[in-house]
Amino acid sequence: MPKQIDLLISGCLAVTVDKNFSVIENAGIAIDDGKIVDIEKNEDVIKAYRARKTVSAKNKIAIPGLINAHTHAAMVYFRGLADDLPLKEWLENHIWPAESRYVNAEFIRNAVKLAAIEMLKSGTTTFCDMYFLPNVAAEVLEDVKIKAILGVPLLDFPTPVSKSPEEGLKNAQKLIESLKGSSRLMAAVMPHSPYTCSSGLLKQAAEMSKEYDVPLQIHLAEEKWENEKIISEKGMTSVAYLNDLTVLSEKTSAAHVNWISREDMEILKEAKTGVIHNPQSNMKLATGICPVPDLLKMGITVGLGTDGAASNNDLDMFGEIQTAARLHKIARKDPTVISAKQALWMATMGGAKSFGLDKEIGSLEINKKADIVLLDTNKPHLVPLYDAHSQLAYSAKGSDVDTVIIDGKIIVENCNLLTCNEEKILNKARLFSKKLKGITF
Amino acid sequence: MPKQIDLLISGCLAVTVDKNFSVIENAGIAIDDGKIVDIEKNEDVIKAYRARKTVSAKNKIAIPGLINAHTHAAMVYFRGLADDLPLKEWLENHIWPAESRYVNAEFIRNAVKLAAIEMLKSGTTTFCDMYFLPNVAAEVLEDVKIKAILGVPLLDFPTPVSKSPEEGLKNAQKLIESLKGSSRLMAAVMPHSPYTCSSGLLKQAAEMSKEYDVPLQIHLAEEKWENEKIISEKGMTSVAYLNDLTVLSEKTSAAHVNWISREDMEILKEAKTGVIHNPQSNMKLATGICPVPDLLKMGITVGLGTDGAASNNDLDMFGEIQTAARLHKIARKDPTVISAKQALWMATMGGAKSFGLDKEIGSLEINKKADIVLLDTNKPHLVPLYDAHSQLAYSAKGSDVDTVIIDGKIIVENCNLLTCNEEKILNKARLFSKKLKGITF
Repeated sequence: MPKQIDLLISGCLAVTVDKNFSVIENAGIAIDDGKIVDIEKNEDVIKAYRARKTVSAKNKIAIPGLINAHTHAAMVYFRGLADDLPLKEWLENHIWPAESRYVNAEFIRNAVKLAAIEMLKSGTTTFCDMYFLPNVAAEVLEDVKIKAILGVPLLDFPTPVSKSPEEGLKNAQKLIESLKGSSRLMAAVMPHSPYTCSSGLLKQAAEMSKEYDVPLQIHLAEEKWENEKIISEKGMTSVAYLNDLTVLSEKTSAAHVNWISREDMEILKEAKTGVIHNPQSNMKLATGICPVPDLLKMGITVGLGTDGAASNNDLDMFGEIQTAARLHKIARKDPTVISAKQALWMATMGGAKSFGLDKEIGSLEINKKADIVLLDTNKPHLVPLYDAHSQLAYSAKGSDVDTVIIDGKIIVENCNLLTCNEEKILNKARLFSKKLKGITF
Repeated sequence: MPKQIDLLISGCLAVTVDKNFSVIENAGIAIDDGKIVDIEKNEDVIKAYRARKTVSAKNKIAIPGLINAHTHAAMVYFRGLADDLPLKEWLENHIWPAESRYVNAEFIRNAVKLAAIEMLKSGTTTFCDMYFLPNVAAEVLEDVKIKAILGVPLLDFPTPVSKSPEEGLKNAQKLIESLKGSSRLMAAVMPHSPYTCSSGLLKQAAEMSKEYDVPLQIHLAEEKWENEKIISEKGMTSVAYLNDLTVLSEKTSAAHVNWISREDMEILKEAKTGVIHNPQSNMKLATGICPVPDLLKMGITVGLGTDGAASNNDLDMFGEIQTAARLHKIARKDPTVISAKQALWMATMGGAKSFGLDKEIGSLEINKKADIVLLDTNKPHLVPLYDAHSQLAYSAKGSDVDTVIIDGKIIVENCNLLTCNEEKILNKARLFSKKLKGITF
């Protein structure tokens, strides 16, 4: 007799991102209790299960939910506020003043909601966020029902929301404890960078990550001068310095990592530290190019992130996949240094591995959480279809996302969000922008 | 008394791309007899005109129709057929064999239709196409009602559709004559490149362009070896060689132009030849980076193109704008070398100027043809809105296009094509792909 299950996705093209990059034509995906319980030829799945709900997925591609492995979500409220500027001028004259003036609990609540719906609608099911007041973000995200890894940014100097590094550490600890019971949210320790944190703060952060067994994320070697500063002050590269302080471990993911040596790569590999590549932000701010082809060849885990929308200027992981797949080809003058499959892997399994979540999410496999995105291929730019990985890496867009499922629950259906009122969230963003002379019309 | 007009676009944010990059909040655009007759504050336009049809454009951005200044439209049928390969292998082992086997009138008819609807739906109103059987493409395009500049590719060797360069020249002449009466289509002379055309053929092409007063488009210095080959054979760079043969003039646009010297740039400037930049294709095939910031600084006209979808893999000009705006920043390690405005200018006025059409199209100005695209900003990734040019260059996507107007006629409305049956066109593409072991599901 057919087994009763919660949900069946019927008749899709399943791009699994499993070990063999299996692609199953006309697949059925059986989901029960939030997990994938079967993924096979549709006819077999239909016979074996009776589902409480069936999603007919003709002409749809199923992929694992995308993982935006580094962002500053609430910065969507500063999207396009100041562009085409050097990073220092952009930060010091535009972003930091705006943050110090406007960031508060209400700002975080509204801005994170906007970021979350932008990510959900473009196929992201999990994101890693380094921004102020993650405790406030957490409340919002529980409602929106997206998954996130959240951390308090730790810095030597006062921030819009904490007076000292000690206060930051205390808040970080509180966050870890408060998220212990959450099924979708997870805390991480987030020292901002080697050049904005003292060695003491970095060590304390590393200890906290170990003590509580939570991930640690840090910005690393984004700009050339950062690395040079550390070399001149500490007599070693940023990577070696962090390693010395025991900040690098398999719990650690380092964002950007543009300016590193071959020896640095060996250290990262040895430490099993993941790297989060943010190609669009790095191109736009002209900060550098992460040596992704080398890292992948060495077996170092690489995830993909959008960075904040103030430097991107969106949170669309498909844009990131496309850009990563193209950037390294032209940078190395070799179209074979990175493949469509690798780009898609970084946006799914790469992110999952960076946070130690690869047993749970990142691919469409039996026993993994049912975090699944369906793309509608009934679009001029998605036909014909010869190679599913190519189509996903070079032709698909966030706007092709039709359905988003997280832990087996449908969150986006026919491009509509089921967990919140989109119109209201957009209007709040427009209202906020008036304070900064935004255009409303 | 209010003047009677055909169409009024009411209440949009007009991004004009005029000389001053004027942006008009809450604008009205009055259209009559296919042209823009007024563009002003909405309240003034509403008072001055009575329109037969009004498009309410609240929360919509109006921009000039985008100009895809270099593509091979029918190659959409080979989208994703072979990727992540060196150009030579890609062409010789995959694209050329597929072309020689499948390209015929029926192929062109169906594939061009797919390309045209992909372009229309993502905001392109005019494209320049170098591909086989442009006479067949022309028939299709008259029905679809998109604007195009079409040419017969001229080559020394036989092509799938012509036996000799002489036959090619004859077909080119026929095309020019047959398109004389068309209001939307225009013929151009299209010698393929300096390395695939004899000097005789190049000269004849240049003469034909002059004799008939039509544009000439040619591939130029896309790959490093091409330029080196010409230098070794002719004792001068590709640009100097074409100049010597009188191929370079203000009627000429050269596609790619990645491998050129400072002297070459001076020659292009002197000849008033336009350059068409194809950043996504050049990145994906790792062929080179066009020195766009230098060209723009020198006052050389630069247009933007997608190239064919087999090397892109889509025909979305918003992707091209975004990529152009980012690529040169990272290539020069300077985020100020190219601005959002410049990227948008290339995709509109730059293309128009390249074809001598800048009196007619490329900006929203009185007396220009009413080729207008409306983007729906009611999307999470398009709020808040501080700077319209930034939003268009870094956040907007082809899928934000809601309405497309060409010569004052609505061609796309609420994302729906009014001139053809999209479903039928997609199904034909799927059917074709089966011949090449495409995936259908």
